[in-house]
Amino acid sequence: MQLLIANKNYSSWSMRPWLVLKAFNLPFDEVMIVFSDEPYAGEFKQKVLAVNPNGKVPILLDQEQMVWDSLAICEYLAEKFPQHALWPADLALRVRARCISAEMHSGFMSLRSQCGMNIHADLKALGAKLWAEDESLRKDMARIEQIWTARPRLDGFLCGEFSIADAFYAPVVMRLNTYGLPVSDSAQRYMALMIAHPAVQQWMQEAVAEPMRVAYLEANP
Amino acid sequence: MQLLIANKNYSSWSMRPWLVLKAFNLPFDEVMIVFSDEPYAGEFKQKVLAVNPNGKVPILLDQEQMVWDSLAICEYLAEKFPQHALWPADLALRVRARCISAEMHSGFMSLRSQCGMNIHADLKALGAKLWAEDESLRKDMARIEQIWTARPRLDGFLCGEFSIADAFYAPVVMRLNTYGLPVSDSAQRYMALMIAHPAVQQWMQEAVAEPMRVAYLEANP
Ligand SMILES: N[C@@H](CCC(=O)N[C@@H](CS)C(=O)NCC(=O)O)C(=O)O
Ligand SMILES: N[C@@H](CCC(=O)N[C@@H](CS)C(=O)NCC(=O)O)C(=O)O
Repeated sequence: MQLLIANKNYSSWSMRPWLVLKAFNLPFDEVMIVFSDEPYAGEFKQKVLAVNPNGKVPILLDQEQMVWDSLAICEYLAEKFPQHALWPADLALRVRARCISAEMHSGFMSLRSQCGMNIHADLKALGAKLWAEDESLRKDMARIEQIWTARPRLDGFLCGEFSIADAFYAPVVMRLNTYGLPVSDSAQRYMALMIAHPAVQQWMQEAVAEPMRVAYLEANP
Repeated sequence: MQLLIANKNYSSWSMRPWLVLKAFNLPFDEVMIVFSDEPYAGEFKQKVLAVNPNGKVPILLDQEQMVWDSLAICEYLAEKFPQHALWPADLALRVRARCISAEMHSGFMSLRSQCGMNIHADLKALGAKLWAEDESLRKDMARIEQIWTARPRLDGFLCGEFSIADAFYAPVVMRLNTYGLPVSDSAQRYMALMIAHPAVQQWMQEAVAEPMRVAYLEANP
């Protein structure tokens, strides 16, 4: 299997299936297509369009299958590797994991658009400003708190063991780190657990070590 | 099973799992929580919050399971009824169905926000104006065209037989109908096929017959 991703520092959608593959030790090759200087255009776009008319990463290539969209990739992997609990084995936990992952996939627009993932950066001053001014961002965070604090064990992952659901919330952990948005003690414990996870550690280290920085993704109001 | 939905005329997210349940003849009771006059508030919100802290419909109740988010509900149903091909049985078609459904779930923001579902209405004049002015809407439509015209048979559904993927694009068919956005011949054939589907027919008829109209959802720029 080959996973096509973009820069680890910025590509929140790429991070999710990559973490799932790493966390469950599934064999894959990583192919990075780096973002161009022009947003949604340039060489990045050409290279991605040559693979998928959708023009976006991540993309998983598995022999004749071309799978795109982070959630569909994770469902594909869950189906292909039933011996691993990519989704929790327990029905109630699996239901919850799918619900919160699909909710993340389709929502949290303020958090996503206002606080773009930028792992190496420290944007706490900007975060404090956004927090003070933006009610919809505070609403998104209130829902994140609900989801994170409802985990079965205070010292565990969102649905018990590490699952696709955690991979879906990993970019939020990165954003909260970068923008320093205020969170409860319980949420802080979850963030610490996530950041200590070997797969998350590896992604973060490789993100920070990336030499290329993209101007339009570094520019912040 | 009980499916909690909002007004059929407006609730695009409710339409999806409802269509899947109907199209595959799965037994369920429908419970409608009608939208209040105030957006995201009022009695509607209170009633939904009493079931799910997320505060949104659709919600599927199946004994002790509470399943929310239209995509997670569909995955739950696909898992519960493996004898029905809610996702296509063929691997390549199933992969495609999941990819385009997840892509819809997380994207098409312009189409969704500019052209709210409003089945009974004729908003072709507004549609023409939006089409002329809004480049991101035209981009969303270009991608819809790609997805719809890549279906395996010109006289068939998105991934062959009717599947969850069609349910995910059904609200788009409704929007294009209401706003009269220009589409290719192939896309028109797909729309006609969808509109003729008994489950879609029933939803549309019940939407038009609804006595309650919600002012803030009828107001268009
Ligand atoms: N829903 C998709 C979104 C993918 C996406 O937006 N990827 C970004 C990179 S993080 C991208 O490729 N953007 C390029 C573009 O939109 O031109 C997923 O879950 O994979
Ligand atoms: N991603 C969710 C979205 C659900 C959603 O936004 N539902 C709307 C009705 S169509 C709602 O309940 N809105 C009420 C609110 O946001 O307060 C899904 O797929 O079910």
